[in-house]
Amino acid sequence: MMAQIVDQDVSIQSGFWKQKLDMVIDRMIPYQWQALNDQIPDAAPSHAVENFRIAAGDSRGDFAGTVFQDSDVGKWIEAACYSLAERYDRKLDERLDELIECIGRAQRPDGYLNTYFTVREPEKRWTDLVSAHELYCAGHLIEAAVAHYQVTGKRSLLEIVCRYADLIAQEFGTGAGQRRGYCGHPEIEQALFRLYRVTDNPRYRDLAAYFIDERGRDPGVFQRDVKSDANPYGFAVVENRWHRADYYLAHKPVREQLEVTGHSVRAMYLYAAMTDYFLESGEKALWEVLRGLWNDLVGRKLYVTGGLGSQSFGERFTTEYDLPSDTAYAETCASIGLVFWAQRMLLSDPRSEYADVIETAMYNGVLAGVSLDGSRYFYVNPLEVQPDVAQYRHDHAHVETSRVRWFGCACCPPNIARMIASFSRYLYTRSARTVWVQQYVGSKATLALGPLRVAITQVTDYPWNGKIELIVEGEAGIAFTLALRIPSWCSSFTCSINGRSWEKSTVRNGYLEISRTWAGLHKVILDLSMPVLFIQADAQVKELAGKLAIRRGPLIYCVESCDNGPDLHMLTLNGNAETSAEYRSDLMEGTCVVHARGYRSTSQPLPEQPLSLYRVADPGQSRKSVRISAIPYHQWGNREPNGEMTVWLRST
Amino acid sequence: MMAQIVDQDVSIQSGFWKQKLDMVIDRMIPYQWQALNDQIPDAAPSHAVENFRIAAGDSRGDFAGTVFQDSDVGKWIEAACYSLAERYDRKLDERLDELIECIGRAQRPDGYLNTYFTVREPEKRWTDLVSAHELYCAGHLIEAAVAHYQVTGKRSLLEIVCRYADLIAQEFGTGAGQRRGYCGHPEIEQALFRLYRVTDNPRYRDLAAYFIDERGRDPGVFQRDVKSDANPYGFAVVENRWHRADYYLAHKPVREQLEVTGHSVRAMYLYAAMTDYFLESGEKALWEVLRGLWNDLVGRKLYVTGGLGSQSFGERFTTEYDLPSDTAYAETCASIGLVFWAQRMLLSDPRSEYADVIETAMYNGVLAGVSLDGSRYFYVNPLEVQPDVAQYRHDHAHVETSRVRWFGCACCPPNIARMIASFSRYLYTRSARTVWVQQYVGSKATLALGPLRVAITQVTDYPWNGKIELIVEGEAGIAFTLALRIPSWCSSFTCSINGRSWEKSTVRNGYLEISRTWAGLHKVILDLSMPVLFIQADAQVKELAGKLAIRRGPLIYCVESCDNGPDLHMLTLNGNAETSAEYRSDLMEGTCVVHARGYRSTSQPLPEQPLSLYRVADPGQSRKSVRISAIPYHQWGNREPNGEMTVWLRST
Repeated sequence: MMAQIVDQDVSIQSGFWKQKLDMVIDRMIPYQWQALNDQIPDAAPSHAVENFRIAAGDSRGDFAGTVFQDSDVGKWIEAACYSLAERYDRKLDERLDELIECIGRAQRPDGYLNTYFTVREPEKRWTDLVSAHELYCAGHLIEAAVAHYQVTGKRSLLEIVCRYADLIAQEFGTGAGQRRGYCGHPEIEQALFRLYRVTDNPRYRDLAAYFIDERGRDPGVFQRDVKSDANPYGFAVVENRWHRADYYLAHKPVREQLEVTGHSVRAMYLYAAMTDYFLESGEKALWEVLRGLWNDLVGRKLYVTGGLGSQSFGERFTTEYDLPSDTAYAETCASIGLVFWAQRMLLSDPRSEYADVIETAMYNGVLAGVSLDGSRYFYVNPLEVQPDVAQYRHDHAHVETSRVRWFGCACCPPNIARMIASFSRYLYTRSARTVWVQQYVGSKATLALGPLRVAITQVTDYPWNGKIELIVEGEAGIAFTLALRIPSWCSSFTCSINGRSWEKSTVRNGYLEISRTWAGLHKVILDLSMPVLFIQADAQVKELAGKLAIRRGPLIYCVESCDNGPDLHMLTLNGNAETSAEYRSDLMEGTCVVHARGYRSTSQPLPEQPLSLYRVADPGQSRKSVRISAIPYHQWGNREPNGEMTVWLRST
Repeated sequence: MMAQIVDQDVSIQSGFWKQKLDMVIDRMIPYQWQALNDQIPDAAPSHAVENFRIAAGDSRGDFAGTVFQDSDVGKWIEAACYSLAERYDRKLDERLDELIECIGRAQRPDGYLNTYFTVREPEKRWTDLVSAHELYCAGHLIEAAVAHYQVTGKRSLLEIVCRYADLIAQEFGTGAGQRRGYCGHPEIEQALFRLYRVTDNPRYRDLAAYFIDERGRDPGVFQRDVKSDANPYGFAVVENRWHRADYYLAHKPVREQLEVTGHSVRAMYLYAAMTDYFLESGEKALWEVLRGLWNDLVGRKLYVTGGLGSQSFGERFTTEYDLPSDTAYAETCASIGLVFWAQRMLLSDPRSEYADVIETAMYNGVLAGVSLDGSRYFYVNPLEVQPDVAQYRHDHAHVETSRVRWFGCACCPPNIARMIASFSRYLYTRSARTVWVQQYVGSKATLALGPLRVAITQVTDYPWNGKIELIVEGEAGIAFTLALRIPSWCSSFTCSINGRSWEKSTVRNGYLEISRTWAGLHKVILDLSMPVLFIQADAQVKELAGKLAIRRGPLIYCVESCDNGPDLHMLTLNGNAETSAEYRSDLMEGTCVVHARGYRSTSQPLPEQPLSLYRVADPGQSRKSVRISAIPYHQWGNREPNGEMTVWLRST
């Protein structure tokens, strides 16, 4: 096992992700700034920026929004900084400076920085770690500051958050007079590891480690702080079976947490931070815990889209193999959290399975959360939506059947923005003698291996087809292993170097390894075969028994009623029949439509007398052959409001 | 159309229903008396009888239980009276006398009789018609009184409820100084029609008609009385999409209610009362409404078991064709209410479809609500239970995976008792020249047709097989049409009279009609062919697409894990293969087990690396041929606690 690093210079230049990046830069970031400033008509008000102005004394009024409203500002700053790295924008840079100055004025003289407690309840700092999200908000400001410093070189926000982190480090710990505790929503832990890495101040690493080690101690913060009913911050902290300490990932010390459980976003953020901890400490026992959690997730609790969290109530994991399609929660933030965790697992252990999960989550569970134009969002991402039922049934109340402009609890939209804007950081990892190409994205990168550098340019239409051209230009004397990820969905591929077929290497840990000197200019062409695949779930998954999904490359497909007519449940897929894939530049900014053969049940006329919903079965009858057209799941809901959609179809 | 009557002398003598009746008489009625008196360890306390003692001044203390606790006593008295009719028991008769004396002492001098308002809030009578269930409780006491009078000839309880009904008639109406209003939970309406029929006092009929006519007027009681949050009676009367006036069947005047909606029990009780209204008035427009509602229910909203009400939240109907198996509510009381309604439809219009629905509901949705020994109950009756999921998921929180001893809200157990104990009233209907045999039950009946009488004895092993022997013994000169119901599940049958095949008649409105003189002794043998049938739902029902249920005669079958191993979702039924039916006297007090061929998916070992829940589909592989054993749905959950069960299986 060998830790890798990602501190390279990479930018996304062309193709699928360039289009997404442009959407984030040109539309989402300006749109979200308007949203955070309550300038979007018909959208739920945010008040997030105004809260900072009020705390700064620049404006008058009361705090408004959720108790964790500050975090939306933190995430937006982070996204904006990544966008500056991809494409500099002086006005945005200046807007950030202004906002950071305001944040600075909102900071209390002792370093404290939280608009809810500053404006509303200054005397109640740190009194409800379980639900007040105080350290969570601190974490997002810290992550914003790290990104701002990394991208702009400016220390303005970094210094603000360091003062705050210093205050937190003074307040919390095992020393005399210090508070014992940690946040109900993990987030500050991964932020502090990032802050440690840019400042080299071990205090921040140790504080992160403290919060992780303290978590789940008994008796601890949850026995002390959980209120018996609704707290003033709008969260029902009622003790019920879905809302106990495990919801907060605080039911056991983290090294004893062997099953994926609790609130799905909290779980992902905690596991990511635990992996950061492992990356710093190399503690083998912690790695075993992380591997166990990973296997529990991917082997028993993960949707095929990279979505996670089966239940709305508690936004949480349920039991193993319980993966309902229609009532799925699969919060966009949880898939983003999974990318954070998987990336840290990948840095710990260069196996393609982690990068495969990042790919699945990014192309499906994450991207589904935002409309093509960047202005409408899903908070939850079910794999099947039947609007008549979803709009009526109480157990579907969390399902939006069309994307919406903003949310009262708007954690997802700025999280998507920062995720896409930072995706260039997920393309490569490297060690002293290996460069792993983890994601296939039109991009330019300059990577340092010791004193020598190599530039890699990727040109590809991925994910629409599987051909990737890599131009590798190394300085004289450079030699390393280029490790090209062969995704687990790919069963056949070809590779050539400078026009000659490359047959020498084998696939190891999921990577095609090419070890050689790379001085001068080299063209590597990897061609991943990308047929249409029918996918089935393990037989343990009750909800998916007898069903098939369509996958092509990294994309999970779905069918929509606007292509296939209403009553999608009447369709069955013929898994043995021919399929075809058709690239359509005219459709939804470009897509690859998959066609497959199947059947549609036809409703027989009911017997006149007596009327009944049920009749003696007549197998093989009452269906007609149809062509089923599927589109990538992440593009659903972009053409008609309140259409039907399903990922899984019955097998004929 | 021709109204029939049921005032005959019938008693259940042998076979399936005699066993159930003995269970009610020997076990349920004594057990429930203990429960109503809080004498069952480990059962939710009732306090229902004690509330009457307190109101009567016989005991000290506060009211306890739900605001409608009185109704449990009413239903129990009714059940106890029916049991006296079937088998006289002096001790029970005396216990009823004592209880009725106590109820008499609990009655206020002006006739008012409700223990909650008498003990707890005497000044708040009639102030919350929406949720206080005051008139509902009155209705159940009235029904008890009618049964007590009919069975024992005693007027003690009848006089008590007449005084109460007189007070209600004085209080409510359109006259000067009267209250406008009606109960949030229909019940008093059908009770008043029954009271009218035994007393011949038109005041009670008119009051019932008033309550029905007043219902849903706008602006009405619901605009006036609904509180904005939880009321003191323990009901959240919050305005949300599942809890508006339609929940109470009060969204429109009843003649404009063209779709089955709202709380399922309230709906059934209202429709039953509306049908009583039609039986009294013959109003054609009302009949058209009732037919439309009937067709909406049986054609779009009824479970195959005769269960109804798809959703726990609001215990209510949802949208058409929305019939989830696992989250179904299908409250036992709703199936009982359906029997009440169907019986009144049958009395209005002698078509077998109504009796067919009574049969389906009684043998499946109703009987499933009680254990074989009568001491454990289901309140909700899903068609699929996977305990791991049901015990975990919030949207399954209403599902009990094993029968329980009693409920805090115990509407169902005494309702089952009165339903089974009165089932003899559902066997025959008659008009001046026709006797319809509606249900096939080992029984003796003496029916009057004008001045002449006929005795009919049924001997049958129904529902275990389809042979019914009817001994018909008519007085000299008697001639009538004997109309034998041919159930809609039956596609072939034979009939003989006195040993000679009867070929002359045709089936009309679902009945085989035999018109002749019946003087002397005649033996009619009807033999209904009862093969194992595979049933499918209409293609509109998303939840049942590609699935089959097993039916044999009136019984809907289910499979349980104790017969078929765990993971029932892995089973598929081969609808073309042979089936067999095997009577087992040793199993669950006698049952008919059905065997069918099918397959069980076998979980393939997961690929080692990378671990995933999903893989490329391999159709036709990884299953083994198995024999599937099914038992009648109503007997499920009697052998092992927390087993899996499903009615619908995937078709192979």
